[in-house]
Amino acid sequence: MTTSKKTMSREIQLAARPQGAPVDSDFALVERELGQPGDGEVLVRNLFLSVDPYMRGRMNDTKSYTPPFALNETMTGGAVGEVLASNADGLNVGDLVLHDQGWRTHALLPARAARKVEAREGVSPSAYLGILGMPGLTAYAGLLDVAAFREGDVVFVSGAAGAVGSAVGQIARLKGAARVIGSAGSADKVAHLTEKLGFDTAFNYKDGSVARLLREAAPDGIDVYFDNVGGDHLEAALSSFNTFGRAALCGAISQYNATEAPSAPRNLALAIGKQLTLKGFIVGTYSHLFSQFVQEVGGWIASGQLHYDETVVDGIENMPGAFMGLLTGQNTGKMVVRL
Amino acid sequence: MTTSKKTMSREIQLAARPQGAPVDSDFALVERELGQPGDGEVLVRNLFLSVDPYMRGRMNDTKSYTPPFALNETMTGGAVGEVLASNADGLNVGDLVLHDQGWRTHALLPARAARKVEAREGVSPSAYLGILGMPGLTAYAGLLDVAAFREGDVVFVSGAAGAVGSAVGQIARLKGAARVIGSAGSADKVAHLTEKLGFDTAFNYKDGSVARLLREAAPDGIDVYFDNVGGDHLEAALSSFNTFGRAALCGAISQYNATEAPSAPRNLALAIGKQLTLKGFIVGTYSHLFSQFVQEVGGWIASGQLHYDETVVDGIENMPGAFMGLLTGQNTGKMVVRL
Repeated sequence: MTTSKKTMSREIQLAARPQGAPVDSDFALVERELGQPGDGEVLVRNLFLSVDPYMRGRMNDTKSYTPPFALNETMTGGAVGEVLASNADGLNVGDLVLHDQGWRTHALLPARAARKVEAREGVSPSAYLGILGMPGLTAYAGLLDVAAFREGDVVFVSGAAGAVGSAVGQIARLKGAARVIGSAGSADKVAHLTEKLGFDTAFNYKDGSVARLLREAAPDGIDVYFDNVGGDHLEAALSSFNTFGRAALCGAISQYNATEAPSAPRNLALAIGKQLTLKGFIVGTYSHLFSQFVQEVGGWIASGQLHYDETVVDGIENMPGAFMGLLTGQNTGKMVVRL
Repeated sequence: MTTSKKTMSREIQLAARPQGAPVDSDFALVERELGQPGDGEVLVRNLFLSVDPYMRGRMNDTKSYTPPFALNETMTGGAVGEVLASNADGLNVGDLVLHDQGWRTHALLPARAARKVEAREGVSPSAYLGILGMPGLTAYAGLLDVAAFREGDVVFVSGAAGAVGSAVGQIARLKGAARVIGSAGSADKVAHLTEKLGFDTAFNYKDGSVARLLREAAPDGIDVYFDNVGGDHLEAALSSFNTFGRAALCGAISQYNATEAPSAPRNLALAIGKQLTLKGFIVGTYSHLFSQFVQEVGGWIASGQLHYDETVVDGIENMPGAFMGLLTGQNTGKMVVRL
């Protein structure tokens, strides 16, 4: 079944590769006319678009685990939308789908590149971009598998007010951490972590030396560090680690805009005597945990035991600004763009 | 059974804590009179004493995985000797024992602190300080357990001409590595690695940028890095790692004499996208592998498949010099002091 009318999609293209922090002129809003779905394709009206820190890396022209975005082409990223027209078995008009043709209002894509998801009562479809999607699975797999979390561990997470960090802290608490410590970049976020998300303690990393702040927050040391930040946060964790401590290296947001190589951590040699394990990961490797994750985390959401936040920005034209804001910490929880 | 005559022991004490590289005046040679073995004790005449890089850390007054040496007391370390007098069950005059009362010609110690070892035909007792002792087990456990070596891996080891490094490379070869690459600090050592120890390729890290030298030696990347050096070697390995690469962090000899914090590695964030695992370890954690290790490595030595080198320095009075030489790479293979 197809619709015959033409569809105009408004899309964000990469106009220039950012030098350091991105600026408005690095992005361009264009309009593109989409045709009808070809054989095996669907036409999707996007409802929510995802902005994520990893996208910054793709804006550079350097090899990474994901290829760079091309200049003057529409970027890609997580999106959840509703099927407007389908020329494929298994997907019908009105179905809710998760796919990676974000940064645009409408998408024409092969049905096999879209995952059908359930509309859950009382849960915004945007949850599939956050707590029930990639960031949630990143938190779940990173804490439980990569960092090999065990009941009774003292857990420290940086970027704790972000989409991944806030899930890490809560999953740790629900799984029996002895103590959950978070760092964030404002007093409001710190209050949110302890008052709303059940962190045992939290600190604003702008208040002084991260190493000192962490030492005060965890006088008996930490067992697990979930790293969203890199740099001096990782250095602080290395100093505070107990023997056999484990770090899940998930992101290094402190370095994404860096134009020169970072000097921290300068104390990596501590990993020898303390017998630490540092393990980098990307969520794609852990997709085999997806059903277990949705089951467990979905249950905690339903029972009200796990809270999640969204920062919602309206309008495709505001998406570059949302992304730039994300890199400077203007979000609490998952940041999404609503169309 | 005891001997009644007094025994004079010549011993090396720590006279001052080294600032940077140790110098002669940091050490003092003293004589001490030892009595007869008390109940449960043995008197041992040491045959060989061990000098090891980790001892440098114990000369600083800082907390580490081993406590600091006390000033104006005889230092400790690996030693192999012959029982001169015994007042303990299970050890008899003439037995060969391994113990940690090194840095001295004679030792009076509890029998339970001495491990009886077999005198092997054609094998110097000093082997128990090296290939069949702590350095050998360090290589074995670090490669096979910590770095989770698998047949077909490309393996890079730094400090490859040292006691640990030369064992790592050979064990990797005997276990089916696709390619074994070593770095060392002189052309002679490099030739030794490829001509005598069966490394596929080796380079002198003083010949240029370690990152470039490693890239040339391993154009298709590396899977395992056994790190004895830290600093720019670790940085180079991070650059050359393939996805899911694994580093066993064993030593950071490049930093032992450092008086300021190193800035490398500056590219640790690569561990995220490449999904690397970096794991620090100390050999004591892997003592459960000792019998398996002696069995397997002892077999390779007996069959001539595994070669080991010793650099032998004669005389207790030359032990500080031997230790200082070790830190600047004056050894090939395990360095020992013969008495």
